[in-house]
Amino acid sequence: MKFYDCSTAPSPRRARIFIAEKGLEIETIDISIRDGAHMTEEFQAINPHCTLPVLELDDGTHLVTSTGIWHYLEAVHPEPPLMGATAAEKGVIADLQWHIEFDGFMAMAEALRNTVPAMKGRALTGPVDYEQISELGERGKLRSQRFLDGIDGMIGDKPFAAGDHYSVADIDLMIMVDFAGWLKLKLPEDAANAQRWYQSVSSRPSAKL
Amino acid sequence: MKFYDCSTAPSPRRARIFIAEKGLEIETIDISIRDGAHMTEEFQAINPHCTLPVLELDDGTHLVTSTGIWHYLEAVHPEPPLMGATAAEKGVIADLQWHIEFDGFMAMAEALRNTVPAMKGRALTGPVDYEQISELGERGKLRSQRFLDGIDGMIGDKPFAAGDHYSVADIDLMIMVDFAGWLKLKLPEDAANAQRWYQSVSSRPSAKL
Repeated sequence: MKFYDCSTAPSPRRARIFIAEKGLEIETIDISIRDGAHMTEEFQAINPHCTLPVLELDDGTHLVTSTGIWHYLEAVHPEPPLMGATAAEKGVIADLQWHIEFDGFMAMAEALRNTVPAMKGRALTGPVDYEQISELGERGKLRSQRFLDGIDGMIGDKPFAAGDHYSVADIDLMIMVDFAGWLKLKLPEDAANAQRWYQSVSSRPSAKL
Repeated sequence: MKFYDCSTAPSPRRARIFIAEKGLEIETIDISIRDGAHMTEEFQAINPHCTLPVLELDDGTHLVTSTGIWHYLEAVHPEPPLMGATAAEKGVIADLQWHIEFDGFMAMAEALRNTVPAMKGRALTGPVDYEQISELGERGKLRSQRFLDGIDGMIGDKPFAAGDHYSVADIDLMIMVDFAGWLKLKLPEDAANAQRWYQSVSSRPSAKL
């Protein structure tokens, strides 16, 4: 098994933290997005979508999304469960993770990719170039801040996003908060539940990765 | 258990077909999006995101995304597996489903919601109104057609999207193709693999739903 990572990007961190929380050690190859190593012909043979992370299985299969990698590793290494132990937990975690990804992560990606000069012509990941849409960038910023403002209510008095156990919902939510920092967006200072949760998940050893 | 459905919308169909393929019968309540029944205070108490489908569990928990509903039902009713039987299948199906949702479904939603006069001010689902962005609508159409053009290669000579077994990847892919028809976008006529696959999955009894 081989893990294709990029140490500077938010998406591969989703898999990196998951691997660490499972206590796994997987041979890791760093592909530098800054240097364009994800756009080379060589890397496109591994992942035609030109994105990280990628997990190469021993039979040569490439899993090319965080969710694909999570589902595979959760099945092979069920402990500790990071996608729910019971049916209801599995449902609730999948639900939350979806909203964190679509309303949080994606809004942030839209904000960043449609406003930052260095991403001109690269408004979407993948082999095809798309021009920036400034209105979409502004909408992304607005939605990202609204999402950050809603985290306090999402956490409530629970220790973790989905309840009593740390899960992929916490991984994605923490990475979204850190990612939002790239555009100087942040959790409201007076969001006591969100701040308490963020301190807790950020102090886990895996969060350093 | 109660299933909140909307018979005219593509997203709840993702859960509806899944339920049928599992051979389950669940009490179903139709919420008419056309009549705005998803925006009422009463429905917002069930799902503050104002979207369908929703599955209400017996303890009152509401699962408010297709993926949340799938994960729950797959755990409670594992047969036939629709999210993969082996770890590798689970990974490959999650991978494919993610790309179908993000590059297919989402592109189509962007195309529709940002161009159709009836959706003015409703460019995104949810309780907050967002204005249409015409450039995003055009980009969505372009991406949707590119995605449709790529289905032939995705299917190849396999019977189903992920290989030998029907899965959530087929459910989403079929619904995306049907959804694209709303904007008169379609599979290329000469895409033999895609056409063969589409005929096959569309002829399943669940596809009528």
